[in-house]
Amino acid sequence: MSGPTTPLAPVERAALARAVVLAARGLGGTRPNPVVGCVVLDAAGAVVGEGWHARAGDAHAEVVALRAAGERARGGTAVVTLEPCDHTGRTPPCSRALLAAGVARVVVAVPDPTPRAAGGTGTLAAAGVDVVHVPAGDDAAARRVNEAWLLAQRLGRPHVTWKLAATLDGRSAAADGTSRWITSPESRADAHLLRARSDAVVVGVGTVLADDPSLTVRDLPPTGDDVADAALAGRAPLRVVLDADGRTPPGAAVRRGSVPGGTPGVGETLVLTAADVGRGAGGGVDLAGALGALHGRGVRAVMLEGGPRLAGAFVDAGLVDRVRAYLAPALLGQGSAALVASATGASMDAVARLAVDDVARVGPDLRVDLVPLG
Amino acid sequence: MSGPTTPLAPVERAALARAVVLAARGLGGTRPNPVVGCVVLDAAGAVVGEGWHARAGDAHAEVVALRAAGERARGGTAVVTLEPCDHTGRTPPCSRALLAAGVARVVVAVPDPTPRAAGGTGTLAAAGVDVVHVPAGDDAAARRVNEAWLLAQRLGRPHVTWKLAATLDGRSAAADGTSRWITSPESRADAHLLRARSDAVVVGVGTVLADDPSLTVRDLPPTGDDVADAALAGRAPLRVVLDADGRTPPGAAVRRGSVPGGTPGVGETLVLTAADVGRGAGGGVDLAGALGALHGRGVRAVMLEGGPRLAGAFVDAGLVDRVRAYLAPALLGQGSAALVASATGASMDAVARLAVDDVARVGPDLRVDLVPLG
Ligand SMILES: NC(=O)c1ccc[n+]([C@@H]2O[C@H](COP(=O)([O-])OP(=O)(O)OC[C@H]3O[C@@H](n4cnc5c(N)ncnc54)[C@H](OP(=O)(O)O)[C@@H]3O)[C@@H](O)[C@H]2O)c1
Ligand SMILES: NC(=O)c1ccc[n+]([C@@H]2O[C@H](COP(=O)([O-])OP(=O)(O)OC[C@H]3O[C@@H](n4cnc5c(N)ncnc54)[C@H](OP(=O)(O)O)[C@@H]3O)[C@@H](O)[C@H]2O)c1
Repeated sequence: MSGPTTPLAPVERAALARAVVLAARGLGGTRPNPVVGCVVLDAAGAVVGEGWHARAGDAHAEVVALRAAGERARGGTAVVTLEPCDHTGRTPPCSRALLAAGVARVVVAVPDPTPRAAGGTGTLAAAGVDVVHVPAGDDAAARRVNEAWLLAQRLGRPHVTWKLAATLDGRSAAADGTSRWITSPESRADAHLLRARSDAVVVGVGTVLADDPSLTVRDLPPTGDDVADAALAGRAPLRVVLDADGRTPPGAAVRRGSVPGGTPGVGETLVLTAADVGRGAGGGVDLAGALGALHGRGVRAVMLEGGPRLAGAFVDAGLVDRVRAYLAPALLGQGSAALVASATGASMDAVARLAVDDVARVGPDLRVDLVPLG
Repeated sequence: MSGPTTPLAPVERAALARAVVLAARGLGGTRPNPVVGCVVLDAAGAVVGEGWHARAGDAHAEVVALRAAGERARGGTAVVTLEPCDHTGRTPPCSRALLAAGVARVVVAVPDPTPRAAGGTGTLAAAGVDVVHVPAGDDAAARRVNEAWLLAQRLGRPHVTWKLAATLDGRSAAADGTSRWITSPESRADAHLLRARSDAVVVGVGTVLADDPSLTVRDLPPTGDDVADAALAGRAPLRVVLDADGRTPPGAAVRRGSVPGGTPGVGETLVLTAADVGRGAGGGVDLAGALGALHGRGVRAVMLEGGPRLAGAFVDAGLVDRVRAYLAPALLGQGSAALVASATGASMDAVARLAVDDVARVGPDLRVDLVPLG
């Protein structure tokens, strides 16, 4: 956390942007670890090494980048999205690797909030390395790529992104109860990318009974980064059903192919009942208990896929940290299902105010990212 | 309609873009006429005159631009958003004015579909003027600015833009029945601009009884075009209530200040009852009859402001030609009113599919323009 804050040199700013891209390759793969990207510059400012953290237990981003740089790292700069660790876990501390490589300067975008891992910059500075923390604002992308992990560190529960698909009039399912075709194939492929980048995908048993979804990762659209695409294809986020009374059928698609740890594209299945995690006031499972159980399994990024009742309960409980809305340019009318319902059937307590973070067009649809206000 | 289609010279393309901006100044002021913009270039291609049509009975765009150009128009080019008229109405035909001014070339973006007015280019070509119709694609902005008038010519009824304000979950009013504060002041000001550019603003009596709106034009945000701003401030779109059984209270705000022709900002009020325009199947006024009555008064551009019942009836009847949606980043939940309801209380017949035409951020909200598919 120590170290001066000075404006970045253009070459360092570019290296940081690249390091964030590298870090993002790890999303969905590193639980319980953060994603980290590292770019090593030689003394002249040329890129001589790149690294990213792919999976807990694998080499850290700094180590990968330093290995690629070899002797060229000596007297150079390491630009990292997250403060290098200082402790020996499954791998030796990155601070030691940076010292051994002889880097003269370390640029850190985001300090590590974890007590036992933090302090890497302290060790580095004590050894005479020039440690620079990036100025506020320049750290935005590095914070965003680790948003889930940083929130989980702060709150001790996973970060929750509610993904919803709705029509312009806020309908989430047609009158026949299915929601499969609300949005376009392009939006569904885009949402699969979000699945692949999450540690767990969560639905209510109502969605399992209505749609029998498999919750696997498939049909991923190319991201333009072949290395990322290859990594994403191997992802297997936990498939989680919140099901107070264990009504998930033995033959449900969500159970198919479940093995401990999962296989590429097909995550392990977890049906959380009231017996497992407690019962909430509304009769369903206790949401804090469910998130606690997931946190205990290393889950930091949860993708909540609905349906309306479970989503309403998460909103009511203030447990939605980000909304990813796919809006289809269609009107379904009032015979169809509303987007948000409360678990009890009563109206929601209050207006939930959000702020638009990003808007994009995906096929014929709109994709809107939002974050809660306050 | 005759004349070759050749690619525009860059100076002509720029003149056409400018002519569309000029035409747009007339939106909401010209009923029953189209909006028209004209730029006159001298023989060397320099802009020597600009004109736009401000109000039925006032000079046409071509005449205004030619007057500004004077002798410099001789041997030059007139670029017009809509084919010059060839008939003597309240003003002499524009084709004659163009010939008298001695222009050598006329560039026309959109042919005039009106039988009696059309043919201006025929007269011009017969007199030796080089008449050019712009290639498909280059006419898009000129078509868009006259979208309402062109549709009205084709279908014999006004063009209907449904303006809606909703939350992300498709709620149009809070549980207490009011909808005033769904969207931000910025969105409301933006919507006032749409009012000012419409010939009539239409609501159902339900909205009058619930909200007591005045439907006046006020709080207009600056458009960046001082001339347009001055024109818009003087607009007075008809204020129309669809009210089968005449339940609009005598003291309703929508009636306040109504005088024939309106005064700046305050349009004449028209309460259309079943006795005036017939009764539809759902019990409300006959929508085709209501639109016919408005068409008879010269209305070409209708802004439909809701509420959900009337909007649902328009959607069901296929009488919505464009949707302007202001989406607030908030969730209201199911205690609140849905965005679309059918007049009968039954569900809508089918999914209404639209296409996104434009997306913009307005204050904290999203503004989405859509057009029906098929
Ligand atoms: N458009 C979309 O984005 C989208 C996404 C998903 C689903 N859907 C549609 O949504 C519909 C299903 O709706 P739904 O509301 O029944 O599904 P749901 O929200 O997935 O499931 C609701 C059920 O989850 C269980 N649950 C467990 N803990 C809960 C808690 N704390 N709070 C609330 N519920 C809890 C409850 O059953 P127990 O009490 O038995 O545990 C509850 O009945 C389907 O038609 C599906 O197609 C749409
Ligand atoms: N968010 C928004 O964009 C927005 C905009 C406007 C209003 N609102 C909200 O909407 C609520 C009012 O809803 P509402 O549905 O009662 O209002 P509405 O749609 O404005 O009015 C409905 C009434 O219009 C009359 N009507 C006449 N001809 C009709 C036809 N052909 N089809 C349907 N209705 C016809 C009917 O009464 P008769 O049969 O007596 O003629 C009907 O009851 C208010 O809470 C208001 O705040 C929201």
